[in-house]
Amino acid sequence: MTISNNVQKRMAEGSWVRKMFEEASILRQRFGDENVFDLSIGNPVMEPPIEFNQELMRLVENPIPGMHRYMENAGYPETRATVAEQLSLETGISFDKSDIVMTCGAAGALNVVLKTILNKGDEVIVFAPYFMEYDNYIDNHGGITRVLPTDEQFLPKLDALESAITAWTKAVIINSPNNPSGVVYSEGLIHQLGELLRKKEAHYGTQIFLISDEAYRKIIYDGLKYPPVFGHYLQSIVITSHSKDLALPGERIGYIAVHPDCSQREELISGLIFCNRVLGYVNAPALMQRLVRNLQHVSVSVAQYQKKRDFLYNNLIEMGYSVTKPQGAFYIFPKCPLKDDLAFTTELRQWNVLTVPGRGFGLPGYFRVSYCVDDRTLEGSLVGFKKVAQKFNLCAG
Amino acid sequence: MTISNNVQKRMAEGSWVRKMFEEASILRQRFGDENVFDLSIGNPVMEPPIEFNQELMRLVENPIPGMHRYMENAGYPETRATVAEQLSLETGISFDKSDIVMTCGAAGALNVVLKTILNKGDEVIVFAPYFMEYDNYIDNHGGITRVLPTDEQFLPKLDALESAITAWTKAVIINSPNNPSGVVYSEGLIHQLGELLRKKEAHYGTQIFLISDEAYRKIIYDGLKYPPVFGHYLQSIVITSHSKDLALPGERIGYIAVHPDCSQREELISGLIFCNRVLGYVNAPALMQRLVRNLQHVSVSVAQYQKKRDFLYNNLIEMGYSVTKPQGAFYIFPKCPLKDDLAFTTELRQWNVLTVPGRGFGLPGYFRVSYCVDDRTLEGSLVGFKKVAQKFNLCAG
Repeated sequence: MTISNNVQKRMAEGSWVRKMFEEASILRQRFGDENVFDLSIGNPVMEPPIEFNQELMRLVENPIPGMHRYMENAGYPETRATVAEQLSLETGISFDKSDIVMTCGAAGALNVVLKTILNKGDEVIVFAPYFMEYDNYIDNHGGITRVLPTDEQFLPKLDALESAITAWTKAVIINSPNNPSGVVYSEGLIHQLGELLRKKEAHYGTQIFLISDEAYRKIIYDGLKYPPVFGHYLQSIVITSHSKDLALPGERIGYIAVHPDCSQREELISGLIFCNRVLGYVNAPALMQRLVRNLQHVSVSVAQYQKKRDFLYNNLIEMGYSVTKPQGAFYIFPKCPLKDDLAFTTELRQWNVLTVPGRGFGLPGYFRVSYCVDDRTLEGSLVGFKKVAQKFNLCAG
Repeated sequence: MTISNNVQKRMAEGSWVRKMFEEASILRQRFGDENVFDLSIGNPVMEPPIEFNQELMRLVENPIPGMHRYMENAGYPETRATVAEQLSLETGISFDKSDIVMTCGAAGALNVVLKTILNKGDEVIVFAPYFMEYDNYIDNHGGITRVLPTDEQFLPKLDALESAITAWTKAVIINSPNNPSGVVYSEGLIHQLGELLRKKEAHYGTQIFLISDEAYRKIIYDGLKYPPVFGHYLQSIVITSHSKDLALPGERIGYIAVHPDCSQREELISGLIFCNRVLGYVNAPALMQRLVRNLQHVSVSVAQYQKKRDFLYNNLIEMGYSVTKPQGAFYIFPKCPLKDDLAFTTELRQWNVLTVPGRGFGLPGYFRVSYCVDDRTLEGSLVGFKKVAQKFNLCAG
């Protein structure tokens, strides 16, 4: 056997998102770029904000000696300080630079957190639909994923959570705005979550981390205000990246923020820095750390994404699809008119419209549409959506 | 327990290199930058070659739409193609872009390789002195490190290797030019290594990978020609980075190259790409991939490093230290005049000279000096080396 049995097994399960992304390449070669409507992956077509390019130009024209060298594994103190400042502003809680570890994106951040806290066999709870790479990340570090259902609005069911937490539960991962559903958790829900976790911690005499994946925190619509978890639970760890808010997914830059009043905070943060090092990240890319330092308050145009959401949502509703209106991120997660979500996305693919079956997010019977694409692609996809809607008698037309 | 037992245990063992790096910060604050001679870490003081800055400027002035987006997990095809071309030139073996996976540095590369190939309990052989982060990387993925001795020139003893290989040996890691000793393995030695591994593979009916860590491949002295492993063993995997040859350690850019005739090559490469994704790297930083694309033939001034080596080597020899002359990399690994290498480096630290005890590389009784520093630091360190040599009666003076 050349490769590890476990890797072989997990590869066979595959990633539906990546499968579709690769399928799109093949279709493009066959039908031409303009005839393929790839709504499969969260790879924003938007360019980074103008401020990013200004910072980059400023840095290139005024290079700092040693700017490409190693720094502390946690990242540049100056970058960590501005992240802490911005978080303090957003949450009303006072963060220090020592609460922040710069990472290779949110995926790097989550791997570092899980490696740091998990003993073999520890359980991590997630709520379906969810980003299924979490399974791989949890498995990387010896943990076991427990998948819990959500209600019809894709929100966690607290009674199900209450009965699922055991003495082995080390963490609960939430993701709001959610990939794939686009829902944003309310402050009330987060408060209840915090209360429940505190109760269970007391009951078992354990520490249960609330890991909040906030990769889409800044992409939020309809004037909603993002409710930070930090106000409601001390054992909370935020992981995030600048892949979406600054449209830099290929650059692998993000961070971990630990609640300043988390118990055993220092041990935890030393562990995170150690794991950032030994997992081979060593440190987040130096140049990107310098660039995002002064861009903590900047983000891509959320209005543009909201326009795309409205366009797609309104059209899908009109065609008869059953859809929960997303409040953030850049995904929409309609119900399939067929029971078999894979069969349904295959129907859409026949019109060169690429989406991801709900089973790719632990929830069959739905499909994910990523609308971080240009308007031409979004408009062009409507024909396929309509044809398939008609085939399955969704609408009168 | 807040953090994982294993992480806690490994943190306690610590990294001597990082300890000294942090110690240096403290000394600098106390005595001032100019009075501290930090020879502890391999963090090149040299700036990247002028060609790097030219490429960066060219790219910033002519940005490519989508240049910060996700790409294939293996990296940009164009970058992989130029890496393959350069490797073909250097080795005389024909590499294709599909043999290359771009990674977050050599540390990322090695983690990806080990995750891909190791089943729990598989053994990986290393030769002391060695870069001890290997232990952490092997442990990350369930492997067991077997440390073998070297001869007085820090070269692997093949008879020891022959008896150490078992049915569970999955890989042998070599590192030439070597950190910390600076030795370069000869073509003859690599050939013998290949023969031995083939014999053992046949004996056990297993596949044993030769993983060659070539982070210092381009930093080689005295007109030596680097002997590539690829010519001598089919199951070979090269990991490397541009941290040293382009002086970009903070940027985390490197690659994995698999021998084109490796058995089960496709399965192996699919595994590597998968692990690059699920370990949370996702892909090597996009901008750096574009930059190194056209710099495969470029490197920092090796002549400058050679001058530093000569300066330090000659001075240490004159003071009476016992030193094997390094042929590459930017480290020198003298014998301690004391049995206790930690006590010896503590003596040096009293003169504000920071080095790393040999135990940090699995070989007590020696100490590592990193000379990728400016001349002022190197010159300034001589006082301390001399005082300590005198204290332990190394020289007449």
